[in-house]
Amino acid sequence: MELIEKLNWRYATKRMTGAKIPKEKLDHILHAIRLSASSYGLQPYSVLVIENPEIRKQLQPLAYNQPQIVEASQLLVFAAWDAITEKRIDDHIQDLATGRGTPIEAFAGLKGMLSGLLQRSPEQNFNWSARQAYIALGTGLAAAATEEVDSTPMEGFNPDAFDELLKLKEKGLKSVALLAIGYRDSELDPIAKLKKVRRPHEKFFIHI
Amino acid sequence: MELIEKLNWRYATKRMTGAKIPKEKLDHILHAIRLSASSYGLQPYSVLVIENPEIRKQLQPLAYNQPQIVEASQLLVFAAWDAITEKRIDDHIQDLATGRGTPIEAFAGLKGMLSGLLQRSPEQNFNWSARQAYIALGTGLAAAATEEVDSTPMEGFNPDAFDELLKLKEKGLKSVALLAIGYRDSELDPIAKLKKVRRPHEKFFIHI
Repeated sequence: MELIEKLNWRYATKRMTGAKIPKEKLDHILHAIRLSASSYGLQPYSVLVIENPEIRKQLQPLAYNQPQIVEASQLLVFAAWDAITEKRIDDHIQDLATGRGTPIEAFAGLKGMLSGLLQRSPEQNFNWSARQAYIALGTGLAAAATEEVDSTPMEGFNPDAFDELLKLKEKGLKSVALLAIGYRDSELDPIAKLKKVRRPHEKFFIHI
Repeated sequence: MELIEKLNWRYATKRMTGAKIPKEKLDHILHAIRLSASSYGLQPYSVLVIENPEIRKQLQPLAYNQPQIVEASQLLVFAAWDAITEKRIDDHIQDLATGRGTPIEAFAGLKGMLSGLLQRSPEQNFNWSARQAYIALGTGLAAAATEEVDSTPMEGFNPDAFDELLKLKEKGLKSVALLAIGYRDSELDPIAKLKKVRRPHEKFFIHI
């Protein structure tokens, strides 16, 4: 029940105070994101945690000058793998083998399934990886709310320009969504006092 | 901190007992999903809550005969809008106006932004709607965990066959992901005792 209260409390914060999130809360939010469910456990994305104020000033005009980019405590950039490669699959299986103390041969079945991904088009795999990143975005939003940290998911930015500035191409990544985390400025934010509206249960769910 | 424990506790459950989730917990999970963040608050998707055992038996072969389809307490189907239409935008704005007790004219700016979506290709809009649904999937996974309800996100199914059986085309929807919710069968599930492995912090996050 507590989660419902926290989700009702949160909203897409437009103005933040610049106050810093205590380290323990930040660690929890990042940890929750890292624990997100992911198909095959692959986690085909990375998350940038941008605190550097200079970099954020450079990013702001690439995101319609939205104030949260610089007023957040941290700006998280969810960046999906630009391609699924054999190397990335092998690294994942190596991590699993190490993490579980199991010989790598035990993952032959999983490797077969993951290798199937290599047959899909790069665009299909990128779209799939982006969706996986959105599961983590949803987890991060819930985690921030439980820590009473404000958050703003953002899609209004120029991904190519972000990728260039953050040198993501060299890392085989493409930015897909932002999550500004920090503290609302209730006086400056015109949205802060508005009632949250969601589609009513009977229009949103179909019970069968 | 509690959320981290719960997220560590959860895993993609392969076998469930068929036990029913108490109504209050189910209501919380569905409520959390409905409160998920969504771009413009649009929520361009619906969620089917399938309890009917006959229907689930028919769905099972369309999802590689995975046992959770019938062993779950409920099977949730996240179904994205097949298209963004002016009618859907207007309905959303009407819901906002009603929910906030504000005249519809106050949403002219939002309507302008939403109308911009009509310029994108149907495929772009469907992919975007699917991503929005994945935010709700991530929220649902976190909510189930906080209620100590097991959950399995599933992409291994035939979306076209699901859409036909569930008559989703007539509703302007396309299934994009499943979430089985229920209770793990720790004896039958070979995965239940395996250690959760996630990419280590230093390989997953990029701090700037």
